[in-house]
Formats: sequence, structure tokens, C-alpha cells
Amino acid sequence: MPGRQGARGRLGARGRDELGWGVEAVQVRARAGGGAAGLRRVRGGGRKEGVRGRPSSLGRAGPSGLSRGWPDPEHCTVDHFGFNNVKTFKQRYLIADKHWKKNGGSILFYTGNEGDIIWFCNNTGFMWNVAEELEAMLVFAEHRYYGESLPFGEDSFKDSKHLNFLTSEQALADYAELIRHLKRTIPGADSQPVIAVGGSYGGMLAAWFRMKYPHLVVGALAASAPIWQFEDLVSCGVFMKITTEDFRKSGPNCAESILRSWGAINRISRTGRGLQWLTEALHLCSPLTSGDISVLKEWLSETWVNLAMVNYPYATSFLQPLPAWPIKVVCQYLKNPNVSDTLLLQNIFQVLNVYYNYSGQAKCLNISETTTSSLGSMGWSYQACTEMVMPFCTNGIDDMFEPFHWDLKIFSDNCFNQWGVKPRPFWITTLYGGKNISSHSNIVFSNGDLDPWSGGGVTKNITDTLVAINIPDAAHHLDLRANTAFDPSSVLLARSLEVKYMKGWITDFYGSARRQG
Amino acid sequence: MPGRQGARGRLGARGRDELGWGVEAVQVRARAGGGAAGLRRVRGGGRKEGVRGRPSSLGRAGPSGLSRGWPDPEHCTVDHFGFNNVKTFKQRYLIADKHWKKNGGSILFYTGNEGDIIWFCNNTGFMWNVAEELEAMLVFAEHRYYGESLPFGEDSFKDSKHLNFLTSEQALADYAELIRHLKRTIPGADSQPVIAVGGSYGGMLAAWFRMKYPHLVVGALAASAPIWQFEDLVSCGVFMKITTEDFRKSGPNCAESILRSWGAINRISRTGRGLQWLTEALHLCSPLTSGDISVLKEWLSETWVNLAMVNYPYATSFLQPLPAWPIKVVCQYLKNPNVSDTLLLQNIFQVLNVYYNYSGQAKCLNISETTTSSLGSMGWSYQACTEMVMPFCTNGIDDMFEPFHWDLKIFSDNCFNQWGVKPRPFWITTLYGGKNISSHSNIVFSNGDLDPWSGGGVTKNITDTLVAINIPDAAHHLDLRANTAFDPSSVLLARSLEVKYMKGWITDFYGSARRQG
Repeated sequence: MPGRQGARGRLGARGRDELGWGVEAVQVRARAGGGAAGLRRVRGGGRKEGVRGRPSSLGRAGPSGLSRGWPDPEHCTVDHFGFNNVKTFKQRYLIADKHWKKNGGSILFYTGNEGDIIWFCNNTGFMWNVAEELEAMLVFAEHRYYGESLPFGEDSFKDSKHLNFLTSEQALADYAELIRHLKRTIPGADSQPVIAVGGSYGGMLAAWFRMKYPHLVVGALAASAPIWQFEDLVSCGVFMKITTEDFRKSGPNCAESILRSWGAINRISRTGRGLQWLTEALHLCSPLTSGDISVLKEWLSETWVNLAMVNYPYATSFLQPLPAWPIKVVCQYLKNPNVSDTLLLQNIFQVLNVYYNYSGQAKCLNISETTTSSLGSMGWSYQACTEMVMPFCTNGIDDMFEPFHWDLKIFSDNCFNQWGVKPRPFWITTLYGGKNISSHSNIVFSNGDLDPWSGGGVTKNITDTLVAINIPDAAHHLDLRANTAFDPSSVLLARSLEVKYMKGWITDFYGSARRQG
Repeated sequence: MPGRQGARGRLGARGRDELGWGVEAVQVRARAGGGAAGLRRVRGGGRKEGVRGRPSSLGRAGPSGLSRGWPDPEHCTVDHFGFNNVKTFKQRYLIADKHWKKNGGSILFYTGNEGDIIWFCNNTGFMWNVAEELEAMLVFAEHRYYGESLPFGEDSFKDSKHLNFLTSEQALADYAELIRHLKRTIPGADSQPVIAVGGSYGGMLAAWFRMKYPHLVVGALAASAPIWQFEDLVSCGVFMKITTEDFRKSGPNCAESILRSWGAINRISRTGRGLQWLTEALHLCSPLTSGDISVLKEWLSETWVNLAMVNYPYATSFLQPLPAWPIKVVCQYLKNPNVSDTLLLQNIFQVLNVYYNYSGQAKCLNISETTTSSLGSMGWSYQACTEMVMPFCTNGIDDMFEPFHWDLKIFSDNCFNQWGVKPRPFWITTLYGGKNISSHSNIVFSNGDLDPWSGGGVTKNITDTLVAINIPDAAHHLDLRANTAFDPSSVLLARSLEVKYMKGWITDFYGSARRQG
């Protein structure tokens, strides 16, 4: 989901050089934007203004540690599920085999999600950290319609006809074909177990890949994968409730101050003078009009959501560099909700100034910035308008947001206006089983308690082999990030458990092969 | 597969009134044709001459025992895997609930294959026989592009664009949507276990349905389902080898006589006089030309294959009424291979006269008849040219046929000529796992040892819950047919085992529901 993908992309930019493989950090041209674009767009359906052009591809500078270099394109079928369209495209993937053992090794396969695969490669330090122990080849596969894997090149996002092949099913089929290709072409690979790894939407794909193609992957690590954030499998309010909890726990009156801020904005923005004051108080780049107030409030909401997702225990680089435990830092400005509207909003500005201007370089704040040019935001907007229909709502009681009612009709109409397609909100659960997944096996679902997305995740064991790992001190898939000295013990424990399960799958694979052999 | 579907259709026409439900036999307008059209077409790829117009729909007379009547159409999505095409179509299905218990019952779901669903409904007496014991609702779902479930009406077979949505994946998705619909709309159905049942291609669909949608069906009975008749999972010669074995076992020198007949045909057809003699000796409706000889030989091959598939222990109605153990009957004419070419071919005519003219009504024999108007033959020809690429070959040593080499290139070119599509011979195994299916559960694969298709079937247990039931005295899915007094004990045992497994799945379902509830 774009918000998270943006977060990962930025956060990870420095993660790669912590791996100690002697590899230069990848030059990812971080772009402004990102944020919880998916959530915002999802609330009201597709938003016209979110689409500003297609995501540009990243620079060509690749990580020198990827021994096979990149791109290493294969011709991939555009439509796996029909035979009229014979078009193929180049799917990008990355391979690192420094620690791979041709005999007795394993293959970790990252099921790429909605963004450039380099970002994910750089932000999944966990895989790099465990490669030696698992004698593993690392493969990072790019999701179609993201990064450089564009089925129709520049036309890929042109209209619903060109976008027709952007689905999770097609992406999984790409991964299936790619694994067959690798096993056919890399000597030694054919006799090795493959494990799917992914985070966020990529985690959903990892889990679904194991469910639908268990003959190709012996297991899956699905980190922060909200596979139940569909239909009414979970409450539509849980996401914002967890976000609110993060603020409640991070400072006295912090969530209450944010809750009160909406009324303050509404009252002050009633007059032209108020709008002018608000523009100045928040140091906005463009003067607010009364029509901008809903955009302003969405922008603020997304900022709070972003903070919750990246509430990591060490300093990271997101939109701007952020301190460790950023919510704790911003809550220092929000200790007293019972102040005047103007003082409250001046305090809100202090928070925004931490989030958007920690480096002190920004001259003003742009309220359209979080949803714009994040890589893959267009693709995700389309996916959210077709298969990935995730209901969200707020009530202002269990959460610190203005009440918002989930309305499928409005959502659907907005999607049709934006993309010319109608969502099918029941399809994902029909296809992937919703909560009825107990007949599958070998999936680890990990979730951080601080992560808003954990509300739609699997946080209880389903069977002995469909297990949940909950990480009390973690935000959005912290476990997939590289080890650091600042990791809480809970995430270290989670990573070691994950490795234990993966080793078990590998052992089972070779044991079964010996028995058959 | 059309051959088998044709066989089933005809055979079953009288099966339905044996069920004792006080239901009138369905008026199936049996049409001439059928036969092993699929195999013939598959050998050389798509054949132009096989396409003579789209299959006409059956008469409207439905079985009065189907308490919900038919058609009971629902709007079904034409393209489950893309969002650009918003078209829907009416999928036909049949329901019988005479013995269904709303509390504690079950649902048997027939995954329709390549033909009119009425045919399958009438030829799956097993389901009707066990309905009371399992307190089961019976559902028969029609496969898209067959019977009356035509996504584009009369245009459905017009070109590759209209045929684009004829795939097993789309069909399974139809069944998934239908089960959700039934559970939503029939009070009591939601809390009941569904079991998939199918034979032949429908058996493959039943097995694949359990593999891909285990949240919707607790198990599957896959009768005579050659899920391994792909790529090189089994020898391409096994099908014709089993066919030959059936003839070898049914009479002395029987297979050898057939083997020798090809040379006799070749020798005699070299001259115009020979062709004329052959036309008369075989009582053909049209004079043979030298260009017809390959068609003649394919027609004969298909006749032998058809006999092997329907080599049932009691009299049935196929192309014409057939006696019990028909191969044994025809082999009485083929006891001596060491006769002159003319005598040998006169004997072959005696066989054809049994097969095509048991009733004595036919004035002449039509060598294009087995492949033409069988219901669904066009659809299956397309499927065989896209996903369902089944290699077949013969060598004249292990089998009684002229040597035929499987050549994917020729096959593919023929398919392209006929349908404008290129086969993807590796896709089915990539999608459904080939021989690597041990992580699935609750599938019974039944096969008759006499059935040529058993060569591509699962005839050994894979795990405790993926079990094979082999039926020594059975041809093509005899176990799915209604009980008769002439059933060999081996098929009675197979049926009772199948019921035992189904009961186990139902018990497990309710046990698990109780534990959770």
C-alpha cells in the first residue's frame, strides 16, 4: 500500500549499508510524497487530484552486491489467464547469491509489492542478514506495473484497457513463471526449497502465493500483511483506532489534542481571516480556501497514520529524517488539549514541523504532498479501486479522527470516475478464503502491535503451521528491516522465530526429498 | 474431453430413470457424433473440418425431480481476472434438494465439464444414489461456453477475442462465485460443507477446485481425472497403450488384428479400385478418395478409443446402443489376424457394424461423424489448443496403432490456424502443480484400470488425504454412474470407499465447527 511503500522506501534508504556485505548503498532517488496515500484515496475512492502523471523510473544505479546485476529481464506473459493477448513484457528481478550453496541451500523469494523493486531490496535487510545462515540465494521480483516492469511501457496507466492486467493474480502468476524459469536456468536451483517473503501488500502476496502455489514455495513469511482488511472481516475502524492508540500511549493528552484539532480547524476556517491565519500558522505554501479544508484535514490524518506506521525505535529517513520513536517526540507538543483553538493549531504546526521539516530546510508545507509522486501510487490507486477494496471508517470516539462513514457506493462511483472501473469488494475473500484458511500450511504472519495495519492481520495462530508472531514494540514490518543496535528485544525474538520456521520448512523439504529419492 | 463427454452423454440417457426418485428421464436430444474427438484433434492440433457450427442448445425439457428447476440463472462475471470487461452472463445450474437436511446436511457440487449440464446431471447417478445417505443437496454447475452458459451467446465461438474467457481458471472462479451465492441465498446452506464432484475434465476441475479454493470445498471426488496428462508427467504413449491392452485382454489376437488393419488399408487404398472396394466393404456413405485415408484411420482410431472408454459391464447407449462389455463382443470378429487384407477389413466392418449400427437402422457409415456435432466439441478443441495441451503418441509396438510422433510445433501451428491462439503447454503444471501436489488434502482420485485416461491419472496414494482408488473392472468413471445390478464388485467397493471419505470430510467439518463455535 502506497503509504507503507513510501515509508519503506525512504526508511530503508540507509538500511542497506548496515548489512556489512561491503555493498554500496543503492542510490535511490527519494522523491517527495508518499504518505498514506492509499488510505486517503481509499476513504473517498479514487481521487482525481492524486494522479499527476505516471511514476518515473528510478536511476540506473544498482547495488553492486547483486551478483547477477539487474535488470535481468525475462519475457513475461501479460495475460496469464487468457490467450487472445499474446503480448509479453520484461519483468525485472534481482538476484544475490553470495551466500548461496548449490547443494543443500535455499532460495528466498521476495514477492515484490507496489513499488520499485530496488526499494524493497534495500529495505528488506532481514533477508540479507539471514542469507548466510540459510545458505540462501536472494531473489527480489518486481510487481508488474511498478518500477520498471511496465507491461505497456509509458501507456501502462493510460486507461482501464491497459490497466486490465494489474491484479494480484497476474502478479502471482508472474512469480510462479519466474520461479520455474530460475529453476530451469540456474544449475542447482531446481532441487532447492523456495520460501516466499514479503511485507505489507508484498506480505499478502507472499501468503497468497503459498496458498495458491504451494508446489512452488515451501512456506511464506508474511510480514505486516493485512489479509483480513476486506469486507467485514475486521472492523473498518480498527486501523484508525490503532493509530490513535499509538498516540495515546506516546504522551499524555496527545490523542485528545489531535481529536480537538479538527473542531479548531473547522471553527477557524469559517472566515476568510481565519483561513489566512491558518495558512500562516501552519506555514503552508499556498493560501487556504474554504474548499481546501477537507484536503487539509486528510493531509493531517495521513500524517498521523504515517507516523504510526514508521514509529520505529531508531532514527530513520522518511519524508524527512525523523527521530527515534517519532510519535513520542511530536506528542511533547500536544500535552494540553484544553487551550484556545489558535494555540492548539500552533502546537499542531510544531508537530508538522518535526515531521515535514526536521532538517529545517523546508520553507513551507505543501498539503498535497503526501499523496502525489510516491512511486507506485497510481498503480495502487487502481488496485484499491478494483480488487483491494479495504473499508476504513472513524467515529471520533474510539479514535482521534472526525467521524467518517464507509460508503461503498460513493467509493465505487469515485473509482469509476477516476479509472473507469467498478470495484469488486467480495472477490479477494472469494479467491483467497477470507478467514477460512486453515487448510493451508507453512505461513508465518508477523505483525507489530504499533502498526495500524496489524488490525487487518493474522495475530493469532490458526494451526500449528499457520502461525502468528506478534511484536509488541514494532511498527510496520520492522522485522523485515536489517538488524540494528536499537532493535527492541521483541523484534530480535521475532526474527529468530521466523528463521526457526524457515529452517524447519527447509529441513522438511530435504527430508521429504530424501525419502522420495 | 469431448470423447468422454460424448460417451457419458449418450450412455447416461437411460441411467437417470434407474435412480428410483420417481423422476422422469430427462429428454436429452442425443445428437450423432461425439467420440474421441478431443484425442483426434489433439493429435494433429486443431482441425478445421471439426468446426461445423456452434453446438446447439438442448431442448427445454428438464427433469421434474430438480426441485428448483432450471435454468436458474445468475449473473456471472465474464472476466474474473480483469476489470476492464464488465460483461456478465447467465450461468446455468441445477439443484435437487429432496434429501437435503438444512441441519447437519451437506452439499455435493458437480463441477461441470465440457458439455451441457443436463447430460452430466443425468450421468452422475452416483450423486443421486448417495444424496439420502449424505443428507445432501445436489448442485450441478454448467461450465462456461458449454450448454446454455454462453458468455457471448451466439458469438461465443466467433473468434479468439470472444473465446478469451474460456479457461479452467475462469470456470473455477464461476464455481466459487456460485457457491458463495448459494450460501448467501439458501437458508441453511451457509453452515454446510460442500464437496466437489466431477468426472473426466470435470474431475480435474473438482481436484483443482479443492486445491485452489479449499475454503469453499472440504474435499473433492475426482473421477477419471487425468491431471497428469500434461508435459512429460506421463508417457505420451500410455493412453493408446491402455486402449490396446483392453483389446488384448478381450479376445485372442484382437489387438493384433487391429494393428494389421492399418497396413491393409494402406495397401488397398493405393489404387482407385481399392478405394472403391474399401468404400463398399465398410459401407461408407461417401466414396473414399486417397485424401480421405488419414481421416478414415483417425475415425477408426477414435472408434477403438471410444470402445475402451465405454467398455462397461452392462448394455448402454452410446453412439448406438451397445452391448455389455462391447470390446469382448467386437473382438469376436477379430480372432484371426493372419487373413488376407480384404477379409481383415471385412471383419473390421463387422466391428464397426456393432459399434455404429447395433440397432440395424444405419444405412451407411459416416467417417466424419465421431468428431462433429458432439456438444461442446468446439469449446474443447479451443481448450486443447490453449491450456489443455495433452501430448499423445503411438509407436505400433506397445500399442496397436500406426506410429505417431507428438510434435508440439505442428500442434501449435494447427491451433493457430484454427483458433488464432498459441498453446501454452507448461501453464497447467505451473498453475496446478503437476506431480508436486502433496501439500493439498482431501481429494479422492478414482480411476478404472480399463480407462485409457487412467494413464494420466493419480493411481497411487500421495498422502493419507490424497488417495487413489483403482477399480480393476471399470472403464471411464464407471463409479460416477448410477448403481445397477450388473456393477462389478470392484466398483461397488470403490463407491462405498468414496462415500466413506466424503462422510469423513463432513464429520471433520462439523467437528471443527463445533470446536470453534
